[in-house]
Amino acid sequence: MTNCLTPFFHPQGIAIVGASSHPEKLGYGVARNLFKSGYGGAVHLVNPKGGKIFEREMFKNIADIPDPVDLAVLVIPPKYAPATMRACGERGIKATILVSGGFRETGEEGAKLENETVEVAREYGIRMIGPNCIGLIDTHLPLDTTFLPLDMPMAGQIAFISHSGAICDALIDWSKGQGFGFSRIISIGNQADVNETDLLPLVAEDEHTKVITLYLENVNDGERFIQNARKIVAEKPIIVLKTGRSQSGQRAAASHTGALAGADTAYTAAFEKAGIFRANTTEEIFDWARALAWSPLPQGRRVGVLSNAGGLCVVTADSLDYEGLELADFAPETTRALNDFLVPAASTQNPIDMLAGATAKDYAKALRLLLADPNTDSVLVLVPPPPMYPAEEVSDEIIPIIQQAKKPVLVVLVGSEHIKEASHRLQKAKIPEYRFPERATSALARLTERAGFLSTMLQPPPRAKGGEIETGVPTSTSPDLTNIRAALADSRSGDWLNPELAERLMNLYAIPTSPIKFAPSAEGASKIAEELGFPIAIKIASPDISHKSDVDGILLNLASVDEVVEGYEMLMKGVQAKRPRAKLEGVLLQKMIPVGQEVIVGAVRDPQFGALMMFGSGGVEVEGLKDVAFAIAPLSAKEAEKMIEKTWAGKKLGGYRNLPAVDKTALIDALCKLSQLAHDLPEIAEIEINPLTILGKGVVAVDVRVKMS
Amino acid sequence: MTNCLTPFFHPQGIAIVGASSHPEKLGYGVARNLFKSGYGGAVHLVNPKGGKIFEREMFKNIADIPDPVDLAVLVIPPKYAPATMRACGERGIKATILVSGGFRETGEEGAKLENETVEVAREYGIRMIGPNCIGLIDTHLPLDTTFLPLDMPMAGQIAFISHSGAICDALIDWSKGQGFGFSRIISIGNQADVNETDLLPLVAEDEHTKVITLYLENVNDGERFIQNARKIVAEKPIIVLKTGRSQSGQRAAASHTGALAGADTAYTAAFEKAGIFRANTTEEIFDWARALAWSPLPQGRRVGVLSNAGGLCVVTADSLDYEGLELADFAPETTRALNDFLVPAASTQNPIDMLAGATAKDYAKALRLLLADPNTDSVLVLVPPPPMYPAEEVSDEIIPIIQQAKKPVLVVLVGSEHIKEASHRLQKAKIPEYRFPERATSALARLTERAGFLSTMLQPPPRAKGGEIETGVPTSTSPDLTNIRAALADSRSGDWLNPELAERLMNLYAIPTSPIKFAPSAEGASKIAEELGFPIAIKIASPDISHKSDVDGILLNLASVDEVVEGYEMLMKGVQAKRPRAKLEGVLLQKMIPVGQEVIVGAVRDPQFGALMMFGSGGVEVEGLKDVAFAIAPLSAKEAEKMIEKTWAGKKLGGYRNLPAVDKTALIDALCKLSQLAHDLPEIAEIEINPLTILGKGVVAVDVRVKMS
Repeated sequence: MTNCLTPFFHPQGIAIVGASSHPEKLGYGVARNLFKSGYGGAVHLVNPKGGKIFEREMFKNIADIPDPVDLAVLVIPPKYAPATMRACGERGIKATILVSGGFRETGEEGAKLENETVEVAREYGIRMIGPNCIGLIDTHLPLDTTFLPLDMPMAGQIAFISHSGAICDALIDWSKGQGFGFSRIISIGNQADVNETDLLPLVAEDEHTKVITLYLENVNDGERFIQNARKIVAEKPIIVLKTGRSQSGQRAAASHTGALAGADTAYTAAFEKAGIFRANTTEEIFDWARALAWSPLPQGRRVGVLSNAGGLCVVTADSLDYEGLELADFAPETTRALNDFLVPAASTQNPIDMLAGATAKDYAKALRLLLADPNTDSVLVLVPPPPMYPAEEVSDEIIPIIQQAKKPVLVVLVGSEHIKEASHRLQKAKIPEYRFPERATSALARLTERAGFLSTMLQPPPRAKGGEIETGVPTSTSPDLTNIRAALADSRSGDWLNPELAERLMNLYAIPTSPIKFAPSAEGASKIAEELGFPIAIKIASPDISHKSDVDGILLNLASVDEVVEGYEMLMKGVQAKRPRAKLEGVLLQKMIPVGQEVIVGAVRDPQFGALMMFGSGGVEVEGLKDVAFAIAPLSAKEAEKMIEKTWAGKKLGGYRNLPAVDKTALIDALCKLSQLAHDLPEIAEIEINPLTILGKGVVAVDVRVKMS
Repeated sequence: MTNCLTPFFHPQGIAIVGASSHPEKLGYGVARNLFKSGYGGAVHLVNPKGGKIFEREMFKNIADIPDPVDLAVLVIPPKYAPATMRACGERGIKATILVSGGFRETGEEGAKLENETVEVAREYGIRMIGPNCIGLIDTHLPLDTTFLPLDMPMAGQIAFISHSGAICDALIDWSKGQGFGFSRIISIGNQADVNETDLLPLVAEDEHTKVITLYLENVNDGERFIQNARKIVAEKPIIVLKTGRSQSGQRAAASHTGALAGADTAYTAAFEKAGIFRANTTEEIFDWARALAWSPLPQGRRVGVLSNAGGLCVVTADSLDYEGLELADFAPETTRALNDFLVPAASTQNPIDMLAGATAKDYAKALRLLLADPNTDSVLVLVPPPPMYPAEEVSDEIIPIIQQAKKPVLVVLVGSEHIKEASHRLQKAKIPEYRFPERATSALARLTERAGFLSTMLQPPPRAKGGEIETGVPTSTSPDLTNIRAALADSRSGDWLNPELAERLMNLYAIPTSPIKFAPSAEGASKIAEELGFPIAIKIASPDISHKSDVDGILLNLASVDEVVEGYEMLMKGVQAKRPRAKLEGVLLQKMIPVGQEVIVGAVRDPQFGALMMFGSGGVEVEGLKDVAFAIAPLSAKEAEKMIEKTWAGKKLGGYRNLPAVDKTALIDALCKLSQLAHDLPEIAEIEINPLTILGKGVVAVDVRVKMS
């Protein structure tokens, strides 16, 4: 399908259907902008009434349009959309932008019309952007199919794909004041056909685009989105502002994993998996995008800070700390060389405060030294309005140095009138500059993060690499997998899987368990206890009780047959008193696990992104303490490790106070395997191991609960 | 002392000592700015060489200055500072601004010179701002004692006190581009004499100042700072950017409380206690300050959102959610009235999307309806560049409505060139306007927070009010308090207090404990166990072991004398094996506490702000889980409650899963009392109750540890 999208970005000829001679109509705006843009291909205007605009005759019918034409911009009343689409199909046009509103966004009737239009498009193999969109801009081709009364943005290296047309409108104007440009802007409106996932590869292959930014209200095609994005971020960074967080409340869930995973959690995890930066604000997107488009990547976290003002240095040091960056520890020769030419009262330790008397030449000299220092990975230059000379003297001195540097240099100009000219000159030289240290530091942190991501995180998931996890997981065609899926098919949607089947699942994916046996009587229990060995634990077995400890339904460390018999009676009596209506079927027996560290691991199915994995501190208070981390399955060992390290549960694996050090490798292995299981079996809605006990060597899944989709 | 500061803000005559005719000298800049500022009082110029600048004769000696003169700005080489200060004293000048650098900030010699200068100032009763500062600006008086080659900022309602001169320089220029002004700016440099705490009341009493903002690198006079600020915030909001977070590492600490409280924690707690807003970035300070200076306060959290663009509405809804604000639920008549004049496709549910065709009149009409709606506490108006008319049409329509409204209205104009004029007009009308919804929402949240603070948080601490906590704490002159302080005086600094004395402390402040008795032998232990009653717990007693559970040094639920004897031997043997070098003195016995919820409460002495209280989830993993909150002692019941509610430990007090509901009131009471204790007894460095068990009725301090300062 991808090839059919080519005409959107390389049209041989464009038809504007619904072109209008009334300046207040959108059909006029589209024609005006397309001519004004300087688009070099053929332009055909269509209006059923004929007539003339911009000294061009309008065709009355789509059928009359001469070659070449491969893209149509439709500005038409919604009710004519299906017929117009059909006319485009008959004429052989394969790409359309349906600008008009009045479809799905207005209610049921509009949605019906939208569906009809898409059906016609599919029939003819037409790809459609929209409806209810602004269209697209390519500043380099050039091409502008929008109707906005704004000049095109400056030509630049940042592409922007947006679910909102108004945000495109606002950003086109805002970017001009900020001094950066766009390569392409695409407003995709209702995404009735073409969506962000379709467009990503096409935007990525544009030679002018260095960074791809997106404004998204949702993602409909989650797994493919991650796949496309992962491929692209190896070459070009992607930044997303995903909104609608507030609408995405908690989902109904039976497990801790489900309860803790809000719908937005999956988006964050998905973007992380794909290596996409998730911005929190609109300004952040472009603070980051400029740096990513214009600067080389740093080799590490060590930042040199150069300034003539102590206060700005302190603010910067704080921001670096907040962003996980470090003040570089200069080589002695750097400090020596700085001391040679700076005034004695200057601070030549990082951050460097050259004091207010520092000249533009001092900035240049010091910047060269910092860039040459082997202990420095990047540099921030801070310039408040200099008291003795214009700020542009500084920018003129440092621009050529920054342009030749292999390390990123970001500039902070604090002020307004007195730094305006310096700011313009830096922008023109494609050097990222910011008003305040906090914003520059945030951008520098993304450069650093991206360098780290490229070097470590782009690893294939476990199965693809085979040997990465300790022992194998079944291949997707394994008969064992086929058999267990057949067994799972007997469980009804919403059911809890019986413990035996849950155990078979664990065995198939080589996740060690402690066998759990069911006994319907005290006699049966004591027999099984002798088989499994002592000390042993017994737990109440009841389909009506999901949290056994809530009803004191667990007895631990029973050391003999006598204690098992006595315990059985105690449990049945005690629980029955607390939950008179619960059906008590007997008890489950399990050999006691040696002392280790207990954690929770789980997965819950996300409608957009597939299995969402959770890891963290378990126990009954898991939902309150929220010491958990999430990631999208299947996990590579690196991804599992990163997830583990985000939590306190993960940080203490090396031992803490009276907790013994435990086998982190085995935990990573189990987490990867469980992720593969959850990925392979979409018929499972939620799966949770709580606790998974991590021992000195190996792990044991002590309690496994599986709920069917 | 405060009165002596008056000449800084209402000088009758100003002497510039070190005035210079060389335009590149600071002494020239100060004279130039003072004349240019339009200051109406007498100006006297002093230079030992005499001469003329700005057609004014310069005096050779300070002694020659005629009346009136009460403020001197000193721009002099550091070595002359003490003598110049003396000359000012002899001439009867009571206020000086020492602009020059070269003092404490340059090293030991400079510090000596600074001390000498301050000594002379004290001798003559002179107050001094600086050294190493930019001086001060009052835009209303007017007055400008700085040397910056910038015009004064616009006259405004925001005062700014700064530890950094460069940040003043940068903000003066930046604020002009942002369209807001300052009332006063004071750069206080090294604060050798006058500091931010001294200045707060003077700035607060300025009729032009509506909001006080500060850039601080530290606070030297913490308790007085809180006191001054608390008084002021009842009338005028204060916003602080406190930097130096990255330098303030962990303190050496023996308790969990101490380990968890970084030096910056105390600042956050102190600002919260004083009702001060703590900004995270420089831009945030002024985003908030403009709203606080210009807008009325809202009555609640319900926000109406008015826009012509869906995408901006979604971004705004997210931001509101993030900031803890709510989308207002409009009254039916509002929706009806909106439906009457908006196009059918418009969304008349909150947030309102009037669609791109909405006119300026539509904005005005809808805004009036939203303001009249009883379910709306505030309104955000969002305006991207309108497609059909200039944005200033909207601003012109809404300005008079906003100016008359009793509810706050913040405006978001997204763009640059196309919204510039609208932005200017709003700024001129003193209506807060922002480029992006996230920033407007953040400012609106501070307005809402301030309204809440004014209505609930300005309560006196427990002792002042007496009856607020359940039972009294000793008065500061109580003989019991005097006695216990005498006993405490016997403990050496760094010592752990013996358990009996710790228990006396608890008794004096009426915090319930479970008596702990020491027994040096198994025989002694069984005797005490019979006295205290069963079931009983025994713990190892050793000066070398502070975390008993780390060495399995605790046995619980012993039910009989036999079990106590057996347990004693077990404990001694087991712990000795684990810590062969520890001196084991015997055991401590304590009756078992009924089931409740266990929390940690503690206090640690902060060098700036006195006792810093902690509350949260206890247990051995408290430092890993970090489910704790901090506040400055002494606590009011409201403050204690707020602190409790910040943590999961506090949220589950009402009961959670198998945890029983417990007595929150008793916890608040205990926390207040402990805070009074920590406040009253500065000889205590750290005090920690871990656990404090909260029962169905009442609390028990199970384990109390006290370390001396």
